[in-house]
Amino acid sequence: MSVHSVKLVTIGENLLASNDQAAAHNRDRLSEARVLALNLMASPGAGKTSLIVGLLGALQGRAQIGVIEGDIAGSIDTEKVVAAGAYDAVQINTGGNCHLEANMVERALIDLDLASLDILVVENVGNLVCPTHWALGEHLKLCLVSTAEGDDKPIKYPEIFAISDVIVLNKMDLIELVDFDRDFFYESVRALNPKAPIFEVSCRTGEGLAAWAEWLLSRREELLCVSPS
Amino acid sequence: MSVHSVKLVTIGENLLASNDQAAAHNRDRLSEARVLALNLMASPGAGKTSLIVGLLGALQGRAQIGVIEGDIAGSIDTEKVVAAGAYDAVQINTGGNCHLEANMVERALIDLDLASLDILVVENVGNLVCPTHWALGEHLKLCLVSTAEGDDKPIKYPEIFAISDVIVLNKMDLIELVDFDRDFFYESVRALNPKAPIFEVSCRTGEGLAAWAEWLLSRREELLCVSPS
Repeated sequence: MSVHSVKLVTIGENLLASNDQAAAHNRDRLSEARVLALNLMASPGAGKTSLIVGLLGALQGRAQIGVIEGDIAGSIDTEKVVAAGAYDAVQINTGGNCHLEANMVERALIDLDLASLDILVVENVGNLVCPTHWALGEHLKLCLVSTAEGDDKPIKYPEIFAISDVIVLNKMDLIELVDFDRDFFYESVRALNPKAPIFEVSCRTGEGLAAWAEWLLSRREELLCVSPS
Repeated sequence: MSVHSVKLVTIGENLLASNDQAAAHNRDRLSEARVLALNLMASPGAGKTSLIVGLLGALQGRAQIGVIEGDIAGSIDTEKVVAAGAYDAVQINTGGNCHLEANMVERALIDLDLASLDILVVENVGNLVCPTHWALGEHLKLCLVSTAEGDDKPIKYPEIFAISDVIVLNKMDLIELVDFDRDFFYESVRALNPKAPIFEVSCRTGEGLAAWAEWLLSRREELLCVSPS
């Protein structure tokens, strides 16, 4: 058992190093095309696709948005974001894999017209653990969590909160119904990540989406040296 | 990259076979002690700990219940179930691992007084993907999902619904607030798993918990050949 474990770790490190190279290559391509790439990570059902749909509405006419949808199976999210106005969308089915990897994104980028995009949102597989270790080529990691999941997610899944560049708290419309201690949540996040902005939104009511979308546009300008639209 | 992948799969299979052996050993120990073991799997925030607390309330005075809590980090769930009347509880911190494995449960069993227990609930790490491949020694696999996560979880995470012996749909008190299509959910589950009973509950209001708890007791009697209490 321990011998196998040691081998697994070694090969795992090689795979992660290989993944990081592919991710760096993706990031270079995206930066060159002035496409801000967001790695959107969350539990199943936190509202990842709804957040993308909200972004499409908030930036309509101001930014062309592409989407890569990562799922174990199915393509209903891709259909949703195309219907909501995504400029382009590609589905990746991981066939059981619990996270996206950079080479999957590399393959998906072939099918996207990067020259026409301003923002690319990569919706990772719903999982608060495994995606944290696999860079995809993103400029920003976003951790989305919903009030319905409870205020203890930072305590239980610290790494994803620690490594994220921005945290979005969704389903604010349910906060009074689900025993969510907002102060406890903020304190727990701040202990792990003192700096990342935290946006409170409700994809259902639209609350807070504009502020988050504006922040994302401003990050594109800063990180990719593009002038304001 | 492909060479590394092949190696990883081979070693993964060895690890899984080794895990299955440890799981069989755990199951033998538990069966001998007439302890029904439940592997409780769900997304982060679906209500795993609340379901255990609900079970403790529903079977108070009728069954001694032990709990193994699996988390990446933290011990707040163990504190909760002990406060709620668990006969005994053990915390496993996986230190980043996205699922429990049989050898972790084997280690935890040392700290539990099996002779005094009727039911052991093993709360897995919050994840709809990784726990599916790792048997722990359970008699029953339970997939818990909440209405707040949306009706599309069976489409996106088919394997966990396919392999589970029982499915519990939690947060029924929120169903009218979250655009959950009950018929679509049931059809999707039934396409993957025609037989597993589906219980609708609200851990918040207590709705449905008694029926599920009675079912669990009856499964103990059947599977472990114990007479009704």
